This record gives sequence, C-alpha cells and structure tokens, in this order.
Amino acid sequence: MSNREKHDRMANAIRALTMDAVEAAKSGHPGMPMGMADVATVLFGKVLKFDPTDPHWPDRDRFILSAGHGSMLIYSLLYLVGYEGMTLDDIKNFRQLGSRTPGHPEFGHTTGIETTTGPLGQGLANSVGFALAERMLAAQFGSDLVDHHTYVIAGDGCLMEGLSEEAIEIAGRQKLNKLIVLWDDNHITIDGSTALSVATDQLARFEASGWNATRIDGHDPDAILAAIERAKTSDKPSLIACRTTIGFGAPNKGGTNGVHGAPLGAAEIAAARAFLNWEYDPFVIPSDVLDAWRLAGLRSRQAHKNWTQRLKDTDATLRGEFERRVRGDLPSKTGEVVAGVIAKARADGGAVATRKSSEIALEALTEALPEMVGGSADLTHSNNTKTKATSVYVEPPKYDGRYVNWGIREHGMAAAMNGIALHGGFIPYGGTFLVFSDYCRPSIRLSALMGVRVVYVFTHDSIGVGEDGPTHQPVEHLAALRAIPNLLVFRPCDTVETAEAWKLALEHKTGPSVMALTRQNLPLLRTDDTERCLTARGAYELASASDEAQVSLFASGSEVSLAMKARESLEAQGVPTRVVSVPCFELFLNQPEESRRQVVGKAPVKIAIEAAIRQGWDQIVGSDAAFVGMTGFGASGPAPEVFAHFGITPEGVVATALSRLKR
Amino acid sequence: MSNREKHDRMANAIRALTMDAVEAAKSGHPGMPMGMADVATVLFGKVLKFDPTDPHWPDRDRFILSAGHGSMLIYSLLYLVGYEGMTLDDIKNFRQLGSRTPGHPEFGHTTGIETTTGPLGQGLANSVGFALAERMLAAQFGSDLVDHHTYVIAGDGCLMEGLSEEAIEIAGRQKLNKLIVLWDDNHITIDGSTALSVATDQLARFEASGWNATRIDGHDPDAILAAIERAKTSDKPSLIACRTTIGFGAPNKGGTNGVHGAPLGAAEIAAARAFLNWEYDPFVIPSDVLDAWRLAGLRSRQAHKNWTQRLKDTDATLRGEFERRVRGDLPSKTGEVVAGVIAKARADGGAVATRKSSEIALEALTEALPEMVGGSADLTHSNNTKTKATSVYVEPPKYDGRYVNWGIREHGMAAAMNGIALHGGFIPYGGTFLVFSDYCRPSIRLSALMGVRVVYVFTHDSIGVGEDGPTHQPVEHLAALRAIPNLLVFRPCDTVETAEAWKLALEHKTGPSVMALTRQNLPLLRTDDTERCLTARGAYELASASDEAQVSLFASGSEVSLAMKARESLEAQGVPTRVVSVPCFELFLNQPEESRRQVVGKAPVKIAIEAAIRQGWDQIVGSDAAFVGMTGFGASGPAPEVFAHFGITPEGVVATALSRLKR
Repeated sequence: MSNREKHDRMANAIRALTMDAVEAAKSGHPGMPMGMADVATVLFGKVLKFDPTDPHWPDRDRFILSAGHGSMLIYSLLYLVGYEGMTLDDIKNFRQLGSRTPGHPEFGHTTGIETTTGPLGQGLANSVGFALAERMLAAQFGSDLVDHHTYVIAGDGCLMEGLSEEAIEIAGRQKLNKLIVLWDDNHITIDGSTALSVATDQLARFEASGWNATRIDGHDPDAILAAIERAKTSDKPSLIACRTTIGFGAPNKGGTNGVHGAPLGAAEIAAARAFLNWEYDPFVIPSDVLDAWRLAGLRSRQAHKNWTQRLKDTDATLRGEFERRVRGDLPSKTGEVVAGVIAKARADGGAVATRKSSEIALEALTEALPEMVGGSADLTHSNNTKTKATSVYVEPPKYDGRYVNWGIREHGMAAAMNGIALHGGFIPYGGTFLVFSDYCRPSIRLSALMGVRVVYVFTHDSIGVGEDGPTHQPVEHLAALRAIPNLLVFRPCDTVETAEAWKLALEHKTGPSVMALTRQNLPLLRTDDTERCLTARGAYELASASDEAQVSLFASGSEVSLAMKARESLEAQGVPTRVVSVPCFELFLNQPEESRRQVVGKAPVKIAIEAAIRQGWDQIVGSDAAFVGMTGFGASGPAPEVFAHFGITPEGVVATALSRLKR
Repeated sequence: MSNREKHDRMANAIRALTMDAVEAAKSGHPGMPMGMADVATVLFGKVLKFDPTDPHWPDRDRFILSAGHGSMLIYSLLYLVGYEGMTLDDIKNFRQLGSRTPGHPEFGHTTGIETTTGPLGQGLANSVGFALAERMLAAQFGSDLVDHHTYVIAGDGCLMEGLSEEAIEIAGRQKLNKLIVLWDDNHITIDGSTALSVATDQLARFEASGWNATRIDGHDPDAILAAIERAKTSDKPSLIACRTTIGFGAPNKGGTNGVHGAPLGAAEIAAARAFLNWEYDPFVIPSDVLDAWRLAGLRSRQAHKNWTQRLKDTDATLRGEFERRVRGDLPSKTGEVVAGVIAKARADGGAVATRKSSEIALEALTEALPEMVGGSADLTHSNNTKTKATSVYVEPPKYDGRYVNWGIREHGMAAAMNGIALHGGFIPYGGTFLVFSDYCRPSIRLSALMGVRVVYVFTHDSIGVGEDGPTHQPVEHLAALRAIPNLLVFRPCDTVETAEAWKLALEHKTGPSVMALTRQNLPLLRTDDTERCLTARGAYELASASDEAQVSLFASGSEVSLAMKARESLEAQGVPTRVVSVPCFELFLNQPEESRRQVVGKAPVKIAIEAAIRQGWDQIVGSDAAFVGMTGFGASGPAPEVFAHFGITPEGVVATALSRLKR
C-alpha cells in the first residue's frame, strides 16, 4: 500500500466513525471531522507528541479542538490511537447521557480532552494561555523538562468571534512561535457560504498581528506535513489555512452547509462509503487501519522515556518543585503567609480599600507562591494586581516574568487564563473592573464548567465607583456571577476577610473564584483575634446584639461597615442589633442547614444590605426580609453622594429597621 | 488672524474647558479631549452636518465618541457650538450628581449624545449599526431624505476589545463607505505605552477587512480635513489613524499615561495655559473663539432648510410613513395582527416549539411592520428569525433587504442593533442561542441602560437543547438576564404567549426585550378565548384548582406544560392544584401588590418550576416555596432523558408536592 493509500484509509476511519456515530445519535456535526480528517491524520499520525498510556505527561504537545462541535474528530482520534478511556462502545454512545462522548468535548469528563470547547473562539483563546504557560514554565524549569507545541483546529466561527482577535493579538505580541493554528478553511458556516458574512482576508489579518500565515490544500497530506514542519521552525505563531471540503467524502452533501450539523442519513452514508472505498460495516475499523493508528500512538514513546530520564536526572529540589507545580499543590507555608498578612493588618488598623487589601495579600502570596502569574486588562494600578514579586513582565524572548500585560482584552485574558490553568504549573489571576466581567463572562462560565483554578480580581465593585457613572457601576453583576454554578464569588469587607478569601481561592483547586473589591476605603472590622478562617463559612456573626436581637443586618463588602454604623445607632436607640457579614454566598449555602439557621438567627426584623440588586439575597435571608440596595442603574457623582442618593446609608438602614419594628 | 491661529484657538477652547472641568471635578480624563481637540475642531468646525437648534434632525450626521471616557470632548463641543441643553454651568458641574455632564456620555440624559459610551468598543460597534441604518433607510425612503455620514472617535482601547473586530468585519462586508473612524493613535493606554500589549499593525488589520486606512498627523488641521474629505469619496469604510500626543498642551504630562485619567493639577494647568497661549481664567471662553464656534454651529442651517423643503415636497403618504418610522410609532394595525396570530394558533392547536411560535408571530409582524429588521448570528434556521417579508438580505450595493447576516458575531450584532435602534427608523431583532447571550451581554446591558427597543431572540433556552450538552445548555442565563434592570425577559409557554410577548416587546419603546424560546415542541396551553393580553401581567393563573388550592405551581416556558401535567396528576389524587404561568418576571413585579398577592395565592404548598437555577424565583413565590429546577450545569443526552436525569418531570413535581403536603 502506498503511503497515500495508507493515509487515506487512516483518515477515512475518522470519517466513517464520525458518520456512524452521528447517525446513531441522530444528532451531531459530521462536516468538520470529515473535512479535517486529513489534517488530523497528519497531525496525530506524524507530528503530535503524546502518549496514550500517560495522557497527563506534562511535556506532551497540547491539541485543542477549538471547533468543538466537531467532537467526533477528537473522539475518533482518541479511540484510534489507543487512549484507554475511549472504546468503540464509547463512540457508539456518542451524545448519550453519561457517556464519555458528550456533544462537545468536556475537560475533566473525557481523558485526552485538554479543554472544554463548543462556545466558539474559546479553544483558540485558551491555546494562547497554553502556549504562554509552556514558555513561562520552560523559562522557570528549562527546556529539558518543558518543550512542547500547542496545536489548534479552529473553524470559521472561531475566527469570527471577536475573542479570536484578542487571542491573535496577544499571541502576536508574545511571539508564541510554538502555537500553530490549523484553520478549517471550508467556506461554509451554518447559514451557508461564509461569503454571506465575511469579506475578511484572514491571512492578512493574522499577519497584521505578527503571525505567519499560509494557505494549503487541506486534503494533501504532504502539503499539510510540510506546512506544519515549516511553522515549527518559525519565530512567530503560525496560521495554516487548510482549504478543505466540509463533509469530505459525502458525495452529495459535502461542501454544503447541509453537512455541518445534522446526520447524513442512510443513503448519503452509503454513497460516502462507496466514494471513499470504505466497505466496512458501521463502527468497524479494519485491523490494518487500527494497527496503523495504534502504531502512531506509540510514536512518542521514546521521547517520553527520554523525558522521564531527564526528569530523574534533574536536581532533586528542582524536580520536587516541578512536580509540586504540575500537581497544583500549594506550598505548605501558604496558611502561614496568610496568617502573617492578617496579623499585620490587625496591627496596622486603619482604613484601606479592599482592592488595596488584595494587593497587600498578593504581595505576600506572590512572594511565597512562584506559581502565581498576575495580570490585568490594562488596569494594573486600579486593580492593584502587580506586586514586587510579579513586577517583571511576561514577554519574549525570555518569558521569565510573572505579570502579563493583557491589554484592554478582558475576554482574551480570561480565556488565556483558563489555558494557563489547564496547562498546569501556574495559578493565574487577572484584573478588570467588576462591571466589565460581562466582557469575559463566556470564559468565566467555562472556568466554572471545567473546574479550573483561575482567580478573577474585579475591583470598583459598586456605585462606590462614583463619578464614572452607570456605565462603570456594577449593579447586577454580583447576582449574575453568583448565578454561575461552581464559581466562588467573594466580596470581603476588610483586609482580614480579603486575605481569607485569597487563601480560600488558592485552596479551591476545583474551580474559579471572583474577588469583588472596592475602590473606596473601608475600616478594619475583623479586629477579633480568631485564627479560624471565618470567610470559609460564607457568612458569620460579626457583631452580636446587646440583648435578644430585634434586628439582624446582613451585608457584604463595603456595606458591612455601613451595617456596623447602623447597628451602633440602633443599639443607641435601645434596639438590640446584630450584624452578619456575608463574604461568600456559595460557601454559606454549602454549610449544614442547622449552622445556616443559627447564622441567620431569629430576629423579627432582617435587613440585607448590598449596593447592588436584591436578586439572590432571598436565599440567604428569606423573601420577607427587607433590603437596602439598588433597583436600577447607578449615577455619576462623588461616591458618598451617590450612596446617599440611593438611600444606601446607615440612616437608611436605621429608618428601614425602625419602620419594620413598628409593623 | 490666520486660519491656523483661529483653528488653534478653537481647539484650545476644548483643551481649556477639559482641563478646568476635570480639575473642578477632581476626576476625569483630560488626555483624550486635549489630544483629539484638533481633529474634533476640524470635524465639528468644517465637516459635520448638524443643527444645534434641532438635535434630532433625522438627516444629521452622527457623531459617536467611542472613547467615552473623553466625555469632556463632546461636552465642550456641545457647549461651544451652541446646543441649548449645554451651558457653561453644566460644564462646571462635570461629573456631579444630577448634572448633564456625567462621567461618561449618556444617551437620553444629555441632548446631542447619540449613544452611551464608556465600555470600550461599544461606540465603534454601535456606529456600524448607525451606518447600516442610514443605508437601509435611504434604500427605503431615498437619498433626498436620508443621506448622512457616521463619524467615530475611537481610542486604542476600542480597537483592542474583540468587539471591534466583529464591528470592523461587519462594516467591511457591508461596504459601509459612509462610516469614518478617527482613531486617536496616541500610543498610550492606562498602563503605559501601547507597546506593552500591542504588536498589531492596525492599518493592515482594517485593510484586511475591506477598509481604507490611512495615517495622518492628528495635530495638522489641513491633513485632518484632507483625510476626511478623501474618506467621504471612498467606496469603503475608512479608518483615519490620527497620530496625536495624548494630553496635547500639557507640557510635562502630555504624551504620557499620567494625563489619561486624572486631573492635571494646578501647576501643570498653569504650564499648559502658558504653552497654549491661553491667558483666560478657568471656564472663560473669549468672545472671538465662542463666536467662531457658534458660527460653526450654524454651518448646516441651509442644508437643514433644504432638507425640510424636500421633506415637505415628498409625497404625503411616503412622508407620513417616514415620520412615523422616525417617531418609532407602531402601525395602528399591530394589535390586530397579533390577534390574528393568536386566533390562528388556537384554531390550529398542536404542539410547536416556541422558537417556531416566534417565527409564526414574526411572519405576520414583519409583513405588517416594515421597520422590523431581522438577523441572526449564523443560526437563522435554529433561531427561526427569517420570514418571507425579511427574506432579502441587507447588503451592498442596494441595502434594500431586511435581514442581516451578522456572522458568528453575537457581540457585534447586539452592539450594531443598538446603533440601528438609536439611529431611528427601525426595530432590530436578532437571534442566537440563549447560552451565547453571555457573548453579547455588555451590549444588552447598554440596550437596557439607554432604553432602546432591541429584541433579542434567544432560542435553545434550557437543558432542552439536549445532546449539545452543558456548553450549550443555559442554566444561569435567565437569572443573569433578569438581573439587568430595564430589560424585559419573556419566556413564553406556547404560541399565544409568544405572540403576546412579541406585541409587548414591540410596544416597549423605552427598553429592550429578550425572548427565551425552546428548541423542543410544547403544546398549546392558552386555549381560552380571552382577548386580554395576559402576558402583560407577567404572571397569571392559567389553570385553577378544583377546590381550595392545596398546591400552587408556578412555571415559565417549557415547564408550564410540565406543571399542567403535574396538576392533572395531583388533582387525580385529590389534591386541588392550580397553575400560574410566569412569562415575564419584570412585568409581574411591576403589578400592584394586591394583584400580585392574588396571583401568588394562599395554597399551603408553592412550587416554582424552571429548567434553570432558582435565583430570582424567591421574589415571585417566596423563599419558603419549593423549587424544581437546576442547581448546576447540564449534561449531554437526548432532551427527555436529560430532563429526567435532573428530576424536572411531572413526577418530580408531584413527589415534591406530596412530600411538602405531608410536612
């Protein structure tokens, strides 16, 4: 058999599995896997460094299917090259409940999937984080341990999402020359020809941001291999436009949008089998083809062995540190570091904004945790994200810094942070204003869905922003973030809670966290000397009532000090009042019901206070509680005046309490 | 005085007002207005077609300050050219509570502001909608009535946001040659030099998407004028990179990030006054300069008069229609059309997905309302957004269609729809999957903040999506959208409610609406023969209990039919059960308290049912009610199995009801 014949049979195995699985599932996307089968066969068959017997080998090349709807491409490949976690039965159960082969590839669910994709553009933008993490880790541990490529298959949809531009620009600025993007240039989207909505010269677009860009016949294995090899020698990131026929092999539907997202149907599948000379029954892979693929799966064994030897030969301390970093364990001193921050804050006293509290915590933590990589979407000195330890920028040619200038690209930053966290070896954190969390929300959702440790530092967290006005004043964002499952949203009230929140965020290995931080100064409230991390409970009594409580005040962040003032005033008027600080809804709702009941208490009047909308508070305090907060958008003016304008003041809380008591 | 001297004095008036206002406010952004004062002076002094005495003249050129933080630029201009709504006192009250001069320009708040900006990239993307609306309206009413340009001042931040790429690509594909973007190419962002984060050749980037691009000295009035005049003759959209010194005139801070977002301080202001030869006291504009500016404000008077004459000369029917369209009034038959849809749905019966119900309503509405412009982010046949009446595409050279192929650019679509609505003459609606509302959330927020009539058609609204899995199954999105103030979120349960929701959305002139629609079929439930629009109440009793209700079931959308089945089963077991349909939280919460109390009722067991998270429901049903819905992300599988997996079934509801009754 000629090399070309062998290639074709290997590629057709992907096409056949795809057609059959989509047909069996009665849903799915055959077009991309069939169109990109040749590219994928060259990539997995001849280029990619991986070992199916050790899917987590730290120095493997990363493969990211940004066009995640074409999930049968990666499922086929995982099965063909011999990943243990992917059997023919899994393929047959494509898109069935509980299967390893869900509609879109899910990280953590299926071994061999590097990142969850489907929401377009995300995989491509993740890949920038992967490639950046590779460079950073290599800078810290050397190329003996870290030296791999990041390959991406992206579709037209990925390139149309604005997120892609942010990713392209970051990759270009960072000269990520080990990032290679294979674009499925098939001229088709769901609605028809790309010409309906695209008049962009993609090659010129990528070149404008410092990429190599080339176009090849995506069905010519030699051209594919040559283009990848060329890209590997470049000093820039590379785009390879692979001109393909979507649904290649389907003689009637191929090349049309009819093949994008629906089963081909029995007749077209039969025609495709004939066209491809694929005479086997559904789901049957002949042994010559399976053997060839399994052999391809062994290609990197020697490289893997050599790497393992190099790791063994590495200085024990460096090796231990490398292994700790890859495992994602924190240094044992982390707790101590946080305790130190708290002790100092208590000794110092004084009012600081929680964004500053966060900086204080970060100064100590980034010093102690070399895995922390900071950054901001061009708001470094507003987000207070840069510390002494992270003062060197991550940039070419050395990548030995720990702070990324993401530019005004919140979405690209968030998606790249997901990639950095997924790559391993780092804990990324990045800042913007809370109101602009909307710009990166799709990536925050994916942090949560994948369960990766990314910390979002969102400052300017309320109408306390003041003069910048309603466009910059978050009102609904706390509720909207709390709505995302598996995301910890912290809104600490002072430096102690902020330090505790950082500790919890770093310890939260299985999910992302948000820090909602103020621009305005707040007094130190946690003057107790407890060593317990009260923030871990999500909510706790910060100040008790002088007698049986008539009023319970619940607040988060900047409104806790306001509640404390209201309590003082109420107590002075003879109304026993307690204050509950609520730094994290999610952690509170995870407490045992009895503990929750105790914290909520039985005071006849309950008032929740937050300079944001009410939504979400009912679950904490009950729908019969009063609420002092926002009901609409904010206003431009000095912060104290804006708070007064909306009645979010100690006096407002006292008046609400007294009127409720009179009922 | 030479022309150049006169120009300089006019430009320096902007610089002086900016310095003084920011200094008085003790906050603000002097850098951009001072840097772009020359460009703005040429644009407003010599090019822009506008009439300060009639700010709403439909054929005015549109000016959009995409770099909204430089708000003192537009406030200065509005004052200088003589807009009635902008006095020197307003300038002196910059950024004060209740002033006409908030931190960022706000549409609807300050006359002369075409769109609210500040969140970066939005103004640029709005402008694509403005320019597209101009072409579409000209196609429908002729160039005698509609023939104007859209000018944008954008900053580096606008160009870094991925949204800008979507906007650029749409404008390029649509060949919007009357769109002219003046980029403040000052090499500075908040964090310092743009080189920190940008390695993109912006001119090449724009050219790749079919734009003209040129670079000029942004302080040379002749070059500015020549470049704009050249751009006006082009057959493509134009980017003019205006190389400027940020904070031009501030001799020490100019050209640095120190001048971007903070007052200059007394010493630097004094130095700037000396540097600019501006010897006047704060807020004083000498009469020669004010006169020159006021004269510039009169420049387009004759053009305006001519236009008014042409409008008068227009055929009365066409003129009446033009005026109706510009006012934004609906045709008087709109109610009748909706009634017809409802009558037919009742006659037809049968189960349809609400995305199909929406298509049915749209077929009739788009036929009757020529102002409706449809589109989709490449999911036309999934969102069911294209109708017979809108079947012709909006595209060059004729722009006579009514359906826009936005491409896979949700954010660009939403921002452009804001621009179309703001321009006037159209009611835009556009579709994507509900889960991808996250991609355009910043623009949805601005629709709501500005109060513009944009309708978001979000289909595939729950785990009912099925096989596509958790990346495509919205769980938190209903809550997150309901959190946005001034946004109506409709989740109708059948064709009748869907038609009612469309009617309400179209009648809602002062804000946007979301239609959350199913992929899966739903039975017709509103078989009553009432002509009242029950959806207008937000929630209402759909089925009463056979006796004093023991159980009240509350549901929206696809879960209403599920509630009806549960009711049947409970009634069969002797438990009087009623069902309340809740198609719109916002409208319900606006009802008088007594009406709300009646709808909620007094049944001892209340259960809310929604295939989404609970957040937000407590405000409707109380925190003591039970909830049948989601608590985390979804799963990939056939929809009925996924519903069963998460216990969102009639049986699940019945079990919950019975266990609650036993308590």
